[in-house]
Amino acid sequence: MQVSRRALVDPFIVMDVMERARAAEASGRSIIHMEVGQPGTAAPAGARKALARAMEAGPLGYTVALGLPELRQGIADLYRRWYGIDLNPDRVVVTAGSSAAFLLSFTTLFDAGDRVALGEPGYPSYRQILKALSLEAVGIPSRLENRLQPVPADLQGVTMEGLIVASPGNPSGTMLGRAELAALIDHCAGRGVRFISDEIYHGLHYGDRAVSALEIADDLHVINSFSKYFSMTGWRIGWMVVPESQIRVVERLAQNMFICPPHASQIAALHALDCIDELEANRAIYAENRRLMLEGLPKAGFTRIAPPDGAFYIYADVSDLTTDSLAFAAQILDEAGVAVTPGLDFDPRRGAQTLRFSYARATADIAEGLARLQAFMARRKA
Amino acid sequence: MQVSRRALVDPFIVMDVMERARAAEASGRSIIHMEVGQPGTAAPAGARKALARAMEAGPLGYTVALGLPELRQGIADLYRRWYGIDLNPDRVVVTAGSSAAFLLSFTTLFDAGDRVALGEPGYPSYRQILKALSLEAVGIPSRLENRLQPVPADLQGVTMEGLIVASPGNPSGTMLGRAELAALIDHCAGRGVRFISDEIYHGLHYGDRAVSALEIADDLHVINSFSKYFSMTGWRIGWMVVPESQIRVVERLAQNMFICPPHASQIAALHALDCIDELEANRAIYAENRRLMLEGLPKAGFTRIAPPDGAFYIYADVSDLTTDSLAFAAQILDEAGVAVTPGLDFDPRRGAQTLRFSYARATADIAEGLARLQAFMARRKA
Repeated sequence: MQVSRRALVDPFIVMDVMERARAAEASGRSIIHMEVGQPGTAAPAGARKALARAMEAGPLGYTVALGLPELRQGIADLYRRWYGIDLNPDRVVVTAGSSAAFLLSFTTLFDAGDRVALGEPGYPSYRQILKALSLEAVGIPSRLENRLQPVPADLQGVTMEGLIVASPGNPSGTMLGRAELAALIDHCAGRGVRFISDEIYHGLHYGDRAVSALEIADDLHVINSFSKYFSMTGWRIGWMVVPESQIRVVERLAQNMFICPPHASQIAALHALDCIDELEANRAIYAENRRLMLEGLPKAGFTRIAPPDGAFYIYADVSDLTTDSLAFAAQILDEAGVAVTPGLDFDPRRGAQTLRFSYARATADIAEGLARLQAFMARRKA
Repeated sequence: MQVSRRALVDPFIVMDVMERARAAEASGRSIIHMEVGQPGTAAPAGARKALARAMEAGPLGYTVALGLPELRQGIADLYRRWYGIDLNPDRVVVTAGSSAAFLLSFTTLFDAGDRVALGEPGYPSYRQILKALSLEAVGIPSRLENRLQPVPADLQGVTMEGLIVASPGNPSGTMLGRAELAALIDHCAGRGVRFISDEIYHGLHYGDRAVSALEIADDLHVINSFSKYFSMTGWRIGWMVVPESQIRVVERLAQNMFICPPHASQIAALHALDCIDELEANRAIYAENRRLMLEGLPKAGFTRIAPPDGAFYIYADVSDLTTDSLAFAAQILDEAGVAVTPGLDFDPRRGAQTLRFSYARATADIAEGLARLQAFMARRKA
């Protein structure tokens, strides 16, 4: 049976690293995981307790397609808490993670053949989801002097129906400031280009908080998730914010494409919103991990790094060390026992000379990982 | 901000009924729900207990994209238990409900512009998901003498790249026997038409069990779910079975489009597989409900019904009673306090003269609903 052209998306290169790491662990080796893009922590205790109660109180059948009204209200309240803005909860669409939000957003905004621009380096699945929906991804190489975020000058002459940006970015961890974000939104608004702001790492910042596109304009899509700050990756629960004029259109698509987001995850997410102390304690761990990384990576010899504003990644230029990041990552795994991600998934053009280090796990793991990297690099130089 | 053409899917007509039912209940009226396509029961107790334990034992982060290996094995084992066939667990793809399975299957098999045939009446979301993916739905009116299932003769001269069938069907509850299913599969195989078998109501039969397409051939997609027999609608957990040659392609799509199915739901589903006594007790309730419906609906005056083989619906021809099933359903809701589904969602051509009655809830509700329907119809005739 024949498969479609659009099914032939690129493989994740990091999967090879992860499979190699799994095999190494299965054979008894100790591996430090700096490749994974998720917290090592569970959903907050309050979320888990609430779900345990709810499971015994009712059948947890389908919810309405846009999500539990109290969760949509809770998310709207978060916009007041985090950004000081009033958000109509009717504009909040609860989704099965940001993954479902991308599917909904791209389907709502673009027809087959449309072109959607995205910065490189960036989250690899944007490109593959676009392809699976018969859309064309247009990679925009971003520049180091712009902290690896796209700027309007990069978009001059680019034919596109849409633009998606992420701040803080993955893999860079860098943010778009208010002026930079507004400049991109203005650029798109004047050209009929639909704007999507991926804000999945909001809440995880180490200096100034991230700016939401909703602080600047309403006629755009914002995508967010409970996966990162709220430590709920496996629960597959997130949300999008859409313009008022699109609520009914998105509702109909969501009814048909998803029926509803997972009910259990919605209950856990609702209560996670209140678990501020536990979540801020997680963030303090990432801040300490980040401090260790910024100190330890240069000592190991990874000197071309920029301090990330948010998220839990450091993206390193390793062009002084290799021209084959995949082989280099494999060597680091085999010889240092540390799993890291080669940049090729994030940047097909320049990723052969970059690595992404994640510092989302426990601080003891980060310290051990850095010690192993330093010993490995010292041997390598010797 | 402009929306795409493919975003403009049809509204669910039943939603108007449900909203009206909700408003009536909010105003204090008692409503019997014969419109909903889901069990009133919770996930099996063993599933809930296992999840409660797992929530305290680990972080429940991302799983691999195709699902927990033990769940894929458990589903493969179900094919031995239910159908006596050996299924390679590598061919099982765990999905976020059958909804995600449709998105994955359609994306894997079809490119923008391809035509996918489906029987009318049928599950309304097939048509809308196809549209959202820039595919064209080709409705095939099925005939009463074929028990509202398509047959090869209906497909003569139809240009199509794919065919999706459901047995037991929704709304009809009728099954394709082995010979009928094989005839459709053969028809497609000889013409390069990709075949998708929706088996979401398997396990819920009241005479002979349903036949799986996998008993007949391997070069097709089977879609199933924990929603119906396993009573886990809101958990959004299901699966598909794909040919061995497509496992890697589907894996890459699933990684990018969904990352993974909800981890908590996977754990609950794994343990639901073992809760045979509780699930068979649910089925015995549906069987008793079905008996009451087949006895009570004709007494009320809904005489043009066929005994369903499976699922938990009865599809009634009400052409002797109305030419406007939407208005008729609204009247039944207002005057009898029973919510039923007009046929228009299932069959855009003939659904103005049909109603779907669901008997998935508690037996006492079914008895009360039938009494109300009988009283209403007696008043209507008088």
